[in-house]
Amino acid sequence: MSNSFGHSFCITTFGESHSDAVGAVIDGCPARLPLDVADIQACLDRRRPGHTTLSTPRREEDRVSILSGVDQGVTLGSPIALLVRNTNVKPADYIRFQSVPRPSHADFTYRSKYGILAASGGGRASARETVGRVAAGAIAEKWLALTHDISIVAWVSAVGPIEAPDLTERNIIRADVDSTPARCPCPETAAQMIQLIQDTQREKDSVGGCITCVCRQVPVGWGEPVFDKLTALLAHGMLSIPACHGFEIGSGFPGTRLKGSEHNDAFVVKQGRLGTVTNRSGGVQGGISNGEPIVFRVAFKPTATIGRDQTTSDYEGHPTTLAAAGRHDPCVAPRAVPVVEAMAALVLADLALTHGRSQGKTDD
Amino acid sequence: MSNSFGHSFCITTFGESHSDAVGAVIDGCPARLPLDVADIQACLDRRRPGHTTLSTPRREEDRVSILSGVDQGVTLGSPIALLVRNTNVKPADYIRFQSVPRPSHADFTYRSKYGILAASGGGRASARETVGRVAAGAIAEKWLALTHDISIVAWVSAVGPIEAPDLTERNIIRADVDSTPARCPCPETAAQMIQLIQDTQREKDSVGGCITCVCRQVPVGWGEPVFDKLTALLAHGMLSIPACHGFEIGSGFPGTRLKGSEHNDAFVVKQGRLGTVTNRSGGVQGGISNGEPIVFRVAFKPTATIGRDQTTSDYEGHPTTLAAAGRHDPCVAPRAVPVVEAMAALVLADLALTHGRSQGKTDD
Amino acid sequence: MSNSFGHSFCITTFGESHSDAVGAVIDGCPARLPLDVADIQACLDRRRPGHTTLSTPRREEDRVSILSGVDQGVTLGSPIALLVRNTNVKPADYIRFQSVPRPSHADFTYRSKYGILAASGGGRASARETVGRVAAGAIAEKWLALTHDISIVAWVSAVGPIEAPDLTERNIIRADVDSTPARCPCPETAAQMIQLIQDTQREKDSVGGCITCVCRQVPVGWGEPVFDKLTALLAHGMLSIPACHGFEIGSGFPGTRLKGSEHNDAFVVKQGRLGTVTNRSGGVQGGISNGEPIVFRVAFKPTATIGRDQTTSDYEGHPTTLAAAGRHDPCVAPRAVPVVEAMAALVLADLALTHGRSQGKTDD
Amino acid sequence: MSNSFGHSFCITTFGESHSDAVGAVIDGCPARLPLDVADIQACLDRRRPGHTTLSTPRREEDRVSILSGVDQGVTLGSPIALLVRNTNVKPADYIRFQSVPRPSHADFTYRSKYGILAASGGGRASARETVGRVAAGAIAEKWLALTHDISIVAWVSAVGPIEAPDLTERNIIRADVDSTPARCPCPETAAQMIQLIQDTQREKDSVGGCITCVCRQVPVGWGEPVFDKLTALLAHGMLSIPACHGFEIGSGFPGTRLKGSEHNDAFVVKQGRLGTVTNRSGGVQGGISNGEPIVFRVAFKPTATIGRDQTTSDYEGHPTTLAAAGRHDPCVAPRAVPVVEAMAALVLADLALTHGRSQGKTDD
Repeated sequence: MSNSFGHSFCITTFGESHSDAVGAVIDGCPARLPLDVADIQACLDRRRPGHTTLSTPRREEDRVSILSGVDQGVTLGSPIALLVRNTNVKPADYIRFQSVPRPSHADFTYRSKYGILAASGGGRASARETVGRVAAGAIAEKWLALTHDISIVAWVSAVGPIEAPDLTERNIIRADVDSTPARCPCPETAAQMIQLIQDTQREKDSVGGCITCVCRQVPVGWGEPVFDKLTALLAHGMLSIPACHGFEIGSGFPGTRLKGSEHNDAFVVKQGRLGTVTNRSGGVQGGISNGEPIVFRVAFKPTATIGRDQTTSDYEGHPTTLAAAGRHDPCVAPRAVPVVEAMAALVLADLALTHGRSQGKTDD
Repeated sequence: MSNSFGHSFCITTFGESHSDAVGAVIDGCPARLPLDVADIQACLDRRRPGHTTLSTPRREEDRVSILSGVDQGVTLGSPIALLVRNTNVKPADYIRFQSVPRPSHADFTYRSKYGILAASGGGRASARETVGRVAAGAIAEKWLALTHDISIVAWVSAVGPIEAPDLTERNIIRADVDSTPARCPCPETAAQMIQLIQDTQREKDSVGGCITCVCRQVPVGWGEPVFDKLTALLAHGMLSIPACHGFEIGSGFPGTRLKGSEHNDAFVVKQGRLGTVTNRSGGVQGGISNGEPIVFRVAFKPTATIGRDQTTSDYEGHPTTLAAAGRHDPCVAPRAVPVVEAMAALVLADLALTHGRSQGKTDD
Repeated sequence: MSNSFGHSFCITTFGESHSDAVGAVIDGCPARLPLDVADIQACLDRRRPGHTTLSTPRREEDRVSILSGVDQGVTLGSPIALLVRNTNVKPADYIRFQSVPRPSHADFTYRSKYGILAASGGGRASARETVGRVAAGAIAEKWLALTHDISIVAWVSAVGPIEAPDLTERNIIRADVDSTPARCPCPETAAQMIQLIQDTQREKDSVGGCITCVCRQVPVGWGEPVFDKLTALLAHGMLSIPACHGFEIGSGFPGTRLKGSEHNDAFVVKQGRLGTVTNRSGGVQGGISNGEPIVFRVAFKPTATIGRDQTTSDYEGHPTTLAAAGRHDPCVAPRAVPVVEAMAALVLADLALTHGRSQGKTDD
Repeated sequence: MSNSFGHSFCITTFGESHSDAVGAVIDGCPARLPLDVADIQACLDRRRPGHTTLSTPRREEDRVSILSGVDQGVTLGSPIALLVRNTNVKPADYIRFQSVPRPSHADFTYRSKYGILAASGGGRASARETVGRVAAGAIAEKWLALTHDISIVAWVSAVGPIEAPDLTERNIIRADVDSTPARCPCPETAAQMIQLIQDTQREKDSVGGCITCVCRQVPVGWGEPVFDKLTALLAHGMLSIPACHGFEIGSGFPGTRLKGSEHNDAFVVKQGRLGTVTNRSGGVQGGISNGEPIVFRVAFKPTATIGRDQTTSDYEGHPTTLAAAGRHDPCVAPRAVPVVEAMAALVLADLALTHGRSQGKTDD
């Protein structure tokens, strides 16, 4: 199914941008995990639009409720249903798009596929769909932290042509990331990014960006060989995020320019166990985690919805001019940071539990 | 499971580099597809090592047998089992790796995960595992061609720092690709690539590369929203190929540097239906094909196994020097071309059949 | 996952007997199905307890909300989330069961498996979990009726030793079934069943029963060979219903006493197409529907929770006496009728869409 | 897909009755299980036809090969491919069935579904398909025995109207079962069964039968609540066996006649842990194993293929008379014994590994 992700820690998300609610059901979360609604709300608050001048003016409380699966502050091992009501629904903004598909948006393909389009807004193609991912990811993340001391931190490493220096070996934490609205932990680069985003917004235009993510303390052995490699599932998860155009692990595309003798990560004893001197593998070898930090990078295209006039065609084939009045971010990267972290957490929790399975672990 | 790929057109591959055989079972291939063993053999022959000086000297016939699922030249709708015997097994080459994990190879992670390592060779982590993918992909490809006139062509677009010009809008065919051992259809670039690969081989080193793939005639509407976007499944499939370090669709990572007004693909009437003027979306919008060519690019790291001495550590933590005697390619990109095509075919066939399902089609 | 059912028309249910809500998410319902909340409410009303003296006094409105996936009265092809609030929660009734597992109930096994028990009531093992199934089944049923004119009718064919005559060849409709609180469309048998249930209730005891289900107008060809036979999925669905102890298709267990020459269903032309003279196959041959009515029978054990004193043991191993104060039905069969119908609808809708897939249908 | 079974210990079977080979691929078998081809051959030998006068004269060696996944006598954790060549192929026997569908056989439904029929024999609907199940089940069984000391024994408990006494509380072993060709461990009943089967064979007719299966030493906690209950998966597995018409757990259909006070299994301390006095639950409560023996019963209809003349219709609708010349058993029950055991082993191994997953076990 297209609305579920994960085999062992499996989430199903639901909700259109303007339906009654959005949410997620998590099936497979282990029992006896301490879980409070505040754990989830904290992640949703980081995702929520409207908190800075860099993002869409859509303002929603995004208050999450836990409907099931938690009793007296701990998980029961049963499905955890999470619900967030949609409160700021403005269908009128979207009437035009029933006759003119927005360029590089999903209007045309959804209508072609389903023979129908949600009467308002982007339906499932809206970034609002990611509410369910972030809420579910918060639970995965808590489980990973409590059981394995794993930390996951992502930040904006590029906005348009502005690139941050390589920060993957510094121990960046979320407070560093959130210290600027650009969500780039290098203050100088952040200032440039903010300037570019504001300029772009003024021009009623948009710009792309990249996010770098580091997952620390992932044990050796997670990831399934062949088709469910850790890299493959991460790529799957990231490319499923709206507007994502690329994924690279470790040395990525630039690493293809190196020689093997430059690129290989030699083994060495570190903290009493075998580690690698360098980490061009991004913490994954043969699809399986090797104990080094998982490091990957994700590309987000410029937001498709822009306020400028665009020459395009309506569904009938008549040339027309379109300018979007809907709410949108000039650059999705800052708000996509918690979404990237959530998808990373979901992949890791899923592979952690799948690994237990492949180890033949069956006892209490 | 880690050894299966696809929901509707599902393959399961099996076999280690030095077991009796490698192969695949395809479950979900529609009935009544004309299929001959030669259809599959042709694709395997393109994958086979040993046909040029650019690849490993391991010479295997790689003769495929169809064990089931085909009767009198057509598919029955039942599982198609494909078998290729391993004939050129040299376990002696691999004894050293039982005590010293090869840097940036899967030896260490496999042994950590399973507590055991195939006595010889890379086991499932060997590129030999891709025999099953290519054999299965040949069937997917034939079905796509016969039912939808879809063509899939991939080529080497970069070797180390040498990059081919953008050929995605030229109608490249496989004969163009195979006209040079570098599998780059631009003869000038190919010559440079060949030179670089041969130099690298002489230095007992390796080099990375990139592959570009174009899928033409894919109908509008394939790909499932949210988690099983066409892009997400392509990324999953590509990152599951050994040595793959990155995936990008359409404008990819470079596209993040553009403004939305530069990047958006405006709609226009083309050949009687709605198409786009440009194709920075790479043929996919909101995760669903839009009728334009699917265009993506895949990064392959430099081959991990090199003949040069590398300073590393054995499993006991003792520093040591390792030089691989096993068979390996100085650059995996040329041989990965049919593997990329096969995975693309498998993703498309799977989504094609899943699309039929989501359309509620149930009649004959 | 244990809380999802179906591959193509897939439901995920959630909610404990005493959590905030119970519900379901349906992923894979085709787009453009007219759907109103009343379609679902009607099925839930048939399932609801408290409407006759034969069932538990737990009285809940069970008002369902559609949170997503439906816009202006038609489905969008996106996930349909359904929610029913739990209003009549009486945890105090269940405190005793934290220390004494109810015999033949799931208390002991759940606590052993998860190391925790929902603080009140049966959690996921409660019959309340079936709310989500019935709500989702209502949608499957509507789709089957509108697209294929399929009807599904189940009734109580036995309560304890009282067996109804074979009614499978009469065209029973739901109004016939609902005309008595026993949900047996034979009035004489129903009267006996009601008497037995009331006597049993007076004795603070419970009794088992059987349900027969007939699905008409199922086209030839639904059901997947080998592991996902129509019979296998029906059996899976039925045995997943709380208290179900058996499933038989067509001639079932009694049919094993016949000779092949007595049992075989000879082919004959019926209404212009090939049908069978008899229907001992229950409408399924080789796991695939043959166009005859699907006929099966389901066994439900006596309700485990009874008001009489039972000699048993607490978790510490101390012998004790237990009498349940919680709410329960003396015979589950009458209330299980809509649950059996719902599971049958879910299996058929799932196989219908899977069949379209296996047919290679991919176009609009 | 219809040709795979299991989520964690997953098998995919392939092969038609008259293709080159039949076999299975097992994905998910834990690493480091000692495994020899003889382990598998022993189970296949019990399944093989032709060893007594009670079964089909088709004589095949059914020699199994392990193609992958095992190295130096232990499993690698990678897919295990098993192959059995078809040697005794007599397509000429089956020409008639291209024009006349055999009553109560899968000819008609397969041809309707796929638009094609295997040129000879029953294709995937043949009992020969069960070779792959038995071979894979042998591995599951070995793993269950070595890791949990689990034993699985099935026997013929009814042939036509002849029923064996209840032997579920006696410690029946396979040698007892195999001591008669009827595979009923009660010698007096076995003698009557043999007589009935031989008489039936002489009459060119067939007869149905039942199999009882007991699984001992299954730990508490296996089976997933709601949709993947241990009972639901067992029912799924059993109803997927050719000719299976029914499944019941514990007290089954007869148990519906009891009162709750008679039926409930009271708890009591047994061997230092909580057990039950009786076992009407068949070892499963709320879908989860409770530590008591798993006991279930399976119904097999009379073999559809009989040597007697049957009045039926050809595909064109013309009445005709058909007498099967193909090879078939007068009663499938004795040969189905190892198939029932294999499916039980596959369900248990799958749930064992899934249980480890749901327990959140992730470490070595």
